Amino acid sequence: MNIRIICIGDELLSGDTVNTNLAFIGEELANRGLNVSAETCVPDDLDAIQGAIRQADGADVLIFIGGLGPTTDDLTRAAVAGYLGLQIRSDATLRQHIADYLGERHKNHIPDGYLDIQSQVIDTAELLPNDNGTAPGQLIRHNNALWAMLPGPPREIKPMFINYLLPKILEKRDSVVETLTVRVCALLESQVESKARHAIEGIPGLHFAICIKKDCIMIRLSKPAESAPQALSLAKQRLAKEFGHYLLPDECLTTAHYLGLLLKNRHLMMATAESCTGGGIAAAMTDTAGSSEWIVGGVVTYANEWKMNVLGVREETLQRHGAVSEATVHQMLDGLQQRFDVQAGVAVSGIAGPGGGTPEKPVGTVVIGAYAPHWRCVKTFHFNGMRDTVRQRTANAAINLLITGLLETQK
Amino acid sequence: MNIRIICIGDELLSGDTVNTNLAFIGEELANRGLNVSAETCVPDDLDAIQGAIRQADGADVLIFIGGLGPTTDDLTRAAVAGYLGLQIRSDATLRQHIADYLGERHKNHIPDGYLDIQSQVIDTAELLPNDNGTAPGQLIRHNNALWAMLPGPPREIKPMFINYLLPKILEKRDSVVETLTVRVCALLESQVESKARHAIEGIPGLHFAICIKKDCIMIRLSKPAESAPQALSLAKQRLAKEFGHYLLPDECLTTAHYLGLLLKNRHLMMATAESCTGGGIAAAMTDTAGSSEWIVGGVVTYANEWKMNVLGVREETLQRHGAVSEATVHQMLDGLQQRFDVQAGVAVSGIAGPGGGTPEKPVGTVVIGAYAPHWRCVKTFHFNGMRDTVRQRTANAAINLLITGLLETQK
Repeated sequence: MNIRIICIGDELLSGDTVNTNLAFIGEELANRGLNVSAETCVPDDLDAIQGAIRQADGADVLIFIGGLGPTTDDLTRAAVAGYLGLQIRSDATLRQHIADYLGERHKNHIPDGYLDIQSQVIDTAELLPNDNGTAPGQLIRHNNALWAMLPGPPREIKPMFINYLLPKILEKRDSVVETLTVRVCALLESQVESKARHAIEGIPGLHFAICIKKDCIMIRLSKPAESAPQALSLAKQRLAKEFGHYLLPDECLTTAHYLGLLLKNRHLMMATAESCTGGGIAAAMTDTAGSSEWIVGGVVTYANEWKMNVLGVREETLQRHGAVSEATVHQMLDGLQQRFDVQAGVAVSGIAGPGGGTPEKPVGTVVIGAYAPHWRCVKTFHFNGMRDTVRQRTANAAINLLITGLLETQK
Repeated sequence: MNIRIICIGDELLSGDTVNTNLAFIGEELANRGLNVSAETCVPDDLDAIQGAIRQADGADVLIFIGGLGPTTDDLTRAAVAGYLGLQIRSDATLRQHIADYLGERHKNHIPDGYLDIQSQVIDTAELLPNDNGTAPGQLIRHNNALWAMLPGPPREIKPMFINYLLPKILEKRDSVVETLTVRVCALLESQVESKARHAIEGIPGLHFAICIKKDCIMIRLSKPAESAPQALSLAKQRLAKEFGHYLLPDECLTTAHYLGLLLKNRHLMMATAESCTGGGIAAAMTDTAGSSEWIVGGVVTYANEWKMNVLGVREETLQRHGAVSEATVHQMLDGLQQRFDVQAGVAVSGIAGPGGGTPEKPVGTVVIGAYAPHWRCVKTFHFNGMRDTVRQRTANAAINLLITGLLETQK
């Protein structure tokens, strides 16, 4: 199936907005064995949009993103209707629906003409409900192809795509590709790849793809639905056996979320003691709703005085071993454990750069420690990359280290 | 000038990578009065790449991003050479340069054929140095147009584009559009827009654009170089007068960085006390190198026990007013000021959602406080959006509140 995407908006081409919608839709389709053939991004210009349509006409599914707003530079409806020779009409039901959605609080703030524009519907179009905004999606069937116009704001397009458009795309598939996506935490890409390939050896017809995500390694297996009936469920069993609890459960959005659930299952609360990450680990651990069930708090001890006064790191240790040392990180963990009386924790101290490196401790040197009941580990890492990459990798490694500790001690 | 971009890579269409390169190049060009006419994203497929070239052929500048790596699915060189009927040759100097770049540490890890592929150069191509990787850019002049092939990794493409390609694009301009970009912090978009439009009223020939960035409001003014000399410098003066110190200096990457510099100039150190942002404010304040000159540390007091034990918030206050209250945030500030002896600080407590809201304090209710010498302010805010949006807006508002305090007390 040939799926093409046309993204519309000056702001995408001028760099004022990063196009995250393409990645969102691409991933949702890939997880269902479907590929986007090509994407084109054009400005808010009628000729440019219609030029892009001309080149994409013939696709089985054509998705337009953006340009459905109420201003004069929102031209998607006009471009598509004009290209297909269809009329645009005002839809009274939609108009009322939008007025109701905006409700009391916006009553006096609706600009002139807002409802006139937002209630315009292309003839023959089916509307896709917008649960988070005023512009509905519009769906047209043209020469047996599906043309869908979706709004640009991520919070509007995401539920609309998943709930209303994706089922219609899946219906259109002539051949179904089944996929299995698993995420592995706390292991390196090379380890994950060789273990995974070994685990699924001999299972026929599987296509294997591996990808480094921000906080874990993702494996995507796919195969035509009609071939090798049990292949994916067998692969799933083998991967579960190989990786055990290092597989992220499907309901976990992030590795930090998984750590939170492991803590919650063990009835443990954690805290963080951060230097170079500056609060990034605590921010990741509290990113998921419900995080008060696994984290009580954290300290960012950026200055050495804070390491001493707040966590009880000894001045002598800082002078002899330096702030970035295993001795210091051990005492940061002691501080969480003894002064703050927390059952599990992580501590990091490192040189994120670009300054601060020495021949013995170059930029990217990071000491990471973690503890849980009857377990503690402090290790030195060396990360490549710029400041933000070092900070991100440090946060991931700290979270993964505590996960490892929890899994090792539960055996 | 017609500038087009072709991005190449399966990972962009399957959502495994978000295309940040388009936004980066788009913004750099927009800041110099140049627009990207269109972008196309195609998979690692020779026919697909050449199809995209066919449609973009005729542009004055054609930029290819990605597909310059050493694996068999890196096809940009082959696609461009094939389209133009040019030969690919192995470049001995480049080969040696790459071997030197990889150096000792990679000597034994270079896969077979790596150097063979990475030293391939299209005939007539000029090389653009890669200061952060092995694949150089390649630049071809075709029918008076500039065709540039750049590598995909952001840390490689960014310096290559700025240092080596951008000057050649600027040389090609027939008409020069001058631009002025300013960023305003701590004010709402509507305030910034009306004040800015009023400030530049009567200056002839200016094109005005406004955009909400992650942590500030950006205004971009542009005009043809030959018209109205002095118009932009006059606009700059008027905007400086209107917004004063609420204009971010050019050297500040973020609003948090600007707050850091304001503190540094006043010889003040700050700390954070965070609840709903979970460390995000401290992380933002330490995002910039050199941040130890303005932040000593922070506490994430997620649980009420931590608010009490670490910051000294009174149990009675939490019971009577709740954790999300101005009384609680005042005591969080007291804690930073008195227990931690810090000269300036911010504290936040709020309901990020999706759970935890009540009729009196719905999701999005956030109390933000800040203090500096002889100044303190605690305010209640209501933010719309999902959990991550509420957390991001809270962090921005806290940083902006302390900026406001520092600016107000320096008058």
